Amino acid sequence: MKTFSYGDDSPIAAFATTPGKSALTLIRCSGKGSLELAAGVFSAPEKMLQAAGNTVIHGWIVTPNRAEDKTPGRVDDVLVSVFRAPKSYTGEDSLDISCHGGNAVGKAVLEALRAAGFRDALPGEFTFRAFMNGKLDLSRAESVMELVCARTDRGRSNAINRLSGVLEKEISAVKKQLVEVLSGAEIFLDYSEDEISADAQEIAGRLPHESLARESLARLQKLLKSWQTERLYQEGIFAVIAGRPNSGKSSLFNLLLQEERSIVTEIPGTTRDWIEAWVSIEGIPVRLADTAGLRSSHDPVEKIGVERSRDLLDAADLVLYLIDGEEGITDEDSALIDTLEIPHLVVWNKTDIAPAPEKIIAVSAKTGEGIAELAAAIAGAIQAKIATNAGNPDPSPSLGTVRQKNLVEAAIASLEEALDMAEKMEPLDLVSPLLREAVNSLGEITGEVSTADILEEMFSKFCVGK
Amino acid sequence: MKTFSYGDDSPIAAFATTPGKSALTLIRCSGKGSLELAAGVFSAPEKMLQAAGNTVIHGWIVTPNRAEDKTPGRVDDVLVSVFRAPKSYTGEDSLDISCHGGNAVGKAVLEALRAAGFRDALPGEFTFRAFMNGKLDLSRAESVMELVCARTDRGRSNAINRLSGVLEKEISAVKKQLVEVLSGAEIFLDYSEDEISADAQEIAGRLPHESLARESLARLQKLLKSWQTERLYQEGIFAVIAGRPNSGKSSLFNLLLQEERSIVTEIPGTTRDWIEAWVSIEGIPVRLADTAGLRSSHDPVEKIGVERSRDLLDAADLVLYLIDGEEGITDEDSALIDTLEIPHLVVWNKTDIAPAPEKIIAVSAKTGEGIAELAAAIAGAIQAKIATNAGNPDPSPSLGTVRQKNLVEAAIASLEEALDMAEKMEPLDLVSPLLREAVNSLGEITGEVSTADILEEMFSKFCVGK
Repeated sequence: MKTFSYGDDSPIAAFATTPGKSALTLIRCSGKGSLELAAGVFSAPEKMLQAAGNTVIHGWIVTPNRAEDKTPGRVDDVLVSVFRAPKSYTGEDSLDISCHGGNAVGKAVLEALRAAGFRDALPGEFTFRAFMNGKLDLSRAESVMELVCARTDRGRSNAINRLSGVLEKEISAVKKQLVEVLSGAEIFLDYSEDEISADAQEIAGRLPHESLARESLARLQKLLKSWQTERLYQEGIFAVIAGRPNSGKSSLFNLLLQEERSIVTEIPGTTRDWIEAWVSIEGIPVRLADTAGLRSSHDPVEKIGVERSRDLLDAADLVLYLIDGEEGITDEDSALIDTLEIPHLVVWNKTDIAPAPEKIIAVSAKTGEGIAELAAAIAGAIQAKIATNAGNPDPSPSLGTVRQKNLVEAAIASLEEALDMAEKMEPLDLVSPLLREAVNSLGEITGEVSTADILEEMFSKFCVGK
Repeated sequence: MKTFSYGDDSPIAAFATTPGKSALTLIRCSGKGSLELAAGVFSAPEKMLQAAGNTVIHGWIVTPNRAEDKTPGRVDDVLVSVFRAPKSYTGEDSLDISCHGGNAVGKAVLEALRAAGFRDALPGEFTFRAFMNGKLDLSRAESVMELVCARTDRGRSNAINRLSGVLEKEISAVKKQLVEVLSGAEIFLDYSEDEISADAQEIAGRLPHESLARESLARLQKLLKSWQTERLYQEGIFAVIAGRPNSGKSSLFNLLLQEERSIVTEIPGTTRDWIEAWVSIEGIPVRLADTAGLRSSHDPVEKIGVERSRDLLDAADLVLYLIDGEEGITDEDSALIDTLEIPHLVVWNKTDIAPAPEKIIAVSAKTGEGIAELAAAIAGAIQAKIATNAGNPDPSPSLGTVRQKNLVEAAIASLEEALDMAEKMEPLDLVSPLLREAVNSLGEITGEVSTADILEEMFSKFCVGK
């Protein structure tokens, strides 16, 4: 594959929606000359070239007579939204092409656009351009991807919060405070020692605006704490259903999926031989895996399955260990439970025909009895993972990405070191560079301070078409 | 669930693209008052109300302060394409709302629209309205759904052919011929016997324009033949990989998916315990299933698997029976192959370490050797399913749906009976109603003749949002 780098303004195209058996597929195009290129494969080129920005035109995507098109040249009947620079998402001339849904149609339209001269967009390249053209700061650009990845309404709402600029404002405010502290410190550095009086020299070891620096530190620490909760909302937890054959693992899995109406998506992939799905429990996405296909066996093929099962359990945040109520807790069960080093819930199944002992969560995967209680117990186990001091959801700013978290941590580390040195009355010319580091870390969050490498690394994690 | 019927013009909303981890999700709204309703959950209601048709506006979807939204009311940042009746897909006031992708965002926006007063669209309701408002004839309305369902580029191209009106034109042309034949016959019925001379009476048994009727019949028969091929392009064939354990079924499955770059989609569903995917072989969609998870066993749980395996084989159009080359063709293999009543290809695997006997298709799922030959053999088996007289793909009109095929068959039956009676010199007042039946059948294809029941039945097979 030919590789392209971010940062040019050449015409790019990509699916903006997932092609599938839906009514429509949206293909996004952007870049210098994109209207002219698209006009070359549009049935009414003049209409496209003359279209005002923010208007929608109707026509056909056409190709030069292709043998496989019965009606020569007609690829699909489309609506095209025309955007003119700088009034577009990317800030460039852009088009949103709304074509028919299905797998074959979108492919054929994208193929026609490639033939016209568009290249495939890199992951996140549209948003990258939006950032480069000053449409979004980095923290808001990141929230675009967070929105797409949000698995629960709570995750969406946190991301929208950041997209609307709440985090950007907080970072900018703290940065402004730190710049004030920094200026206060640097004012002394602008003078040579000769020019500063003995008095001034004496106070030079003290950090002016120290209380402001401490307030900044507290705000950054609060932000950092927000990540603990945010991360759970974003990444969710991985829960695995385990247990001996016939304990009813698959039934429980299907029931949990049914009960929780908010099934988000099945994880794609053809090579898994266990089944997974995302469910939402109290707003936290839970990736639930059923190990029913994986059994202890002497068959060499099945042995691989058992190894995979162990890998699954090792990766889990929570294990739901299912007991076959009819047989009770067997020695094998006890032995397996004892080897579990991660948080687990022991769940007694078939309570409809075999009542559970006290203090064990009892369900009937067959009748649905006890499922609400099980969901509550799972939620409880998840809550236990959220440190109690992580704070409750409120409209205060929160961090959205590991990148942001790392930068806030770096800012905190520099600031703490600066305060520590200031306390020890170290000279301000040693303290000052640390404050500058903290300011720069915060600048990186919003993208005022950035390098091409960092940006490429960041945007390449986006999905294509975004 | 409250049920609604097709045929009103109330404001409806639905996903027009598949929600998923994509850049955008498109939600479509249409109906009387839909702009006013949507303005109620849009951050710039006046801008929406004043927007000209075919323009795009930018803003936020908002809700009355919801507790779960940190920034009160902001649901998502969206672009809205505004369409004003009659210049829209449905012919009504409509909106296409382009919101962020992901599972949570689209849901929240649709929820806001519901709160604003939109009801969920019924399957195919947008296209139903387009038909009712004279935007499309029925055959073209059907082609919209065919486009969405097209699994290969050939399928898409045939459907586009119909969307652009090629079938509608052919049906109308044949109908025009038949109306001429019918008028020729009915001219005699307008006179009483007394008024018609003996000469006229004598020729009354002969069908005027009989050659025109025969030409119509030939054109309809040609159309009917097109269905045979079309159907394969639409429905594809179902191929199942079978064989004893360790013969390498999963490896072959994965390899076929890799080789054929045109994997179309994985079939969703959490309760299957075999793996399926669509691949395109010479433009024909092949649903390929791997039975690797299904093994002969004495374990009662696994026995269910084996039964399912038999069901799979019974449903298949083609079986790829895989031989473990290392062990050669065992008695069990021969016995299993003998029970196969459907077309099958015997495929020798592991040819890299165990050379195959002559005349057996030899592959190595490990090294990829022989895969192209296997694909060719599969294509050959598929071609054998297409009757040789089905004709080659050409730009001539073809039928796209079972409904159309049934109506063409009905028209042919009526017309053949009419011609038969005319040949036997039966009175024209017996022939004429048959001709009228043929004309009406053709009118149903394009929708000139239709009933509410037929329309509802037809559109309810569409996907939601179309």
